[in-house]
Amino acid sequence: MALRDTRVTLAHGGGGQAMRDLIEEVFTSVFEPPGMEDQARLTAAALAEPGARLAFTTDSFVVTPLEFPGGDIGKIAVCGTVNDLAVGGARPLWLSAAFIIEEGTEIALLRRIVASMAHEAELAGVRIVTGDTKVVGRGAADGLFVTTSGVGVIPAGRELSAGAVRPSDVALVNGVLGDHGATILAARGDLALSADIVSDCAGLGHLMEAVLAAAPNARGARDATRGGIAAVLNEMAEASGAGIVIDEVALPLREEVRGVCEILGLDPLYLANEGRLVIFVPEAEAEAALAAMRALPEGRGACAIGRAVADHPGQVRMTTAFGGSRIVDMLVGEQLPRIC
Amino acid sequence: MALRDTRVTLAHGGGGQAMRDLIEEVFTSVFEPPGMEDQARLTAAALAEPGARLAFTTDSFVVTPLEFPGGDIGKIAVCGTVNDLAVGGARPLWLSAAFIIEEGTEIALLRRIVASMAHEAELAGVRIVTGDTKVVGRGAADGLFVTTSGVGVIPAGRELSAGAVRPSDVALVNGVLGDHGATILAARGDLALSADIVSDCAGLGHLMEAVLAAAPNARGARDATRGGIAAVLNEMAEASGAGIVIDEVALPLREEVRGVCEILGLDPLYLANEGRLVIFVPEAEAEAALAAMRALPEGRGACAIGRAVADHPGQVRMTTAFGGSRIVDMLVGEQLPRIC
Repeated sequence: MALRDTRVTLAHGGGGQAMRDLIEEVFTSVFEPPGMEDQARLTAAALAEPGARLAFTTDSFVVTPLEFPGGDIGKIAVCGTVNDLAVGGARPLWLSAAFIIEEGTEIALLRRIVASMAHEAELAGVRIVTGDTKVVGRGAADGLFVTTSGVGVIPAGRELSAGAVRPSDVALVNGVLGDHGATILAARGDLALSADIVSDCAGLGHLMEAVLAAAPNARGARDATRGGIAAVLNEMAEASGAGIVIDEVALPLREEVRGVCEILGLDPLYLANEGRLVIFVPEAEAEAALAAMRALPEGRGACAIGRAVADHPGQVRMTTAFGGSRIVDMLVGEQLPRIC
Repeated sequence: MALRDTRVTLAHGGGGQAMRDLIEEVFTSVFEPPGMEDQARLTAAALAEPGARLAFTTDSFVVTPLEFPGGDIGKIAVCGTVNDLAVGGARPLWLSAAFIIEEGTEIALLRRIVASMAHEAELAGVRIVTGDTKVVGRGAADGLFVTTSGVGVIPAGRELSAGAVRPSDVALVNGVLGDHGATILAARGDLALSADIVSDCAGLGHLMEAVLAAAPNARGARDATRGGIAAVLNEMAEASGAGIVIDEVALPLREEVRGVCEILGLDPLYLANEGRLVIFVPEAEAEAALAAMRALPEGRGACAIGRAVADHPGQVRMTTAFGGSRIVDMLVGEQLPRIC
């Protein structure tokens, strides 16, 4: 049966024929999940290998606007979950995708977002194998929320952990920071900013594999989303008990992002990213890790931003451009809601 | 740091210290997930057994009201995902839980819902191992949405499938139908109904294991949620190409549910359930399957409601109380939004 509606109605969530039409035409015809049962049934030789572990993660995405320069909520939903798997050393395999849709949402918009998800999944080498659709009345949700969960396999012997960071390890990032946060700020339009920035949103699974091949003793990595690199550096300092020092001059920031931050009084350390990670590697492996990142488009701007130290355990400090030093704390409040 | 707020604020979703406090105090202190990395890292001997498959499923829950007689959104979120795994023959192992919270939601309400989830997970023998929290502004979501995903293991040799139903198979249900749908209708309060009904919401993993032990050639099962038993019977008829005949007189319905349906002009075949499944078994195994269900609290009201036939392939028919016969179709529109 053909889907003739141009907007989602409550009937599309009712469990009947209208819902089946929506799911088949908009979702499963694009994602092509294996089988159509209530659950995906999956086999992977990698899972049965001795010492392999299963990695499992989830994130809800509520970003507004739903489409923005460089991405959309679907692209973030795929990349975000792929990245959560990848930074733990897992090879991402399968994703689920659950949609909460506000009545009245344009079906053409849904189709664009679904196409974007399928494209990102293919780039990342994962399959979207199961899903769900709920419809809520006008005003009960803001357009569309997407929740993805991901399953991957951690090969035997990989023990990446925030707690494994040790003094003298080098902190690397894979590119300029804060583009996603600044893009969303500008895209909301209510700040009269027209910055020429696009979101950094990208899947980092292939990059993590390349880094781990080049730096087999890498300690731990995190994708720096909500809370920015300040949040992940604090998490790693706290988990490992090491101190961390970053160098303000070394932080890779676009001029446009600096500008947005100056105008709005924001600190780029707290700006969200959707395609940036921080990884700590032993000093001896730092050059090889950087070279591996720079060989990939999503790591072209890779650089070292600091290191772990024995001083001030559990604390993150920044050497400022003027030679001073200041504490980089977790954000106490919120810098920008609905960034992802 | 102690959580002093009584309501959720945007800061609780910002990626900083307030979010960490909320997550630690309200969620992880109760769910006690293994480890605190971005992902759960899991091992299960069952996954490595030859022929075992991984089952993966997801559902978003948007039920309103958030608390109702017999359950709450958290209980449904755990049971619904456990049941999706179980009806496919999987043994549920791990769940993820992602929360989209409207600013202003009472933290005491969140705590009750989280406690309910932890309780149901324990009953079902699953662990909530990973999660996420997003906060959206007032009016951008209706209180709370919860998305759970589930991972389980299908032991070698289990091939339950809606498409495996064959003529002469018997259709069994595990208890009275429609209690959940009728309860939500009454609980919304805008119908001036005060029916003495509670939701049937329950995890069915243990019941499925008992049925499969008693009826090893069971064909396929579905939990009858949105769209009611009409939806799942149609799905199974279509997938298998068999006809299905159900007997109106045999349908187990509470008097109160019949009453609600009569007053509102609803058909109980389309009422949602959250703890009811339909399973097709070979005739020779029907009695054993019924006995296995009736031995458990969640199967006390089990009975046969019909069978698969060679006639009218792909179509569901009901023999009415007056001896006639009518087609039971998929619901075309929606009977009741936000039932789960």
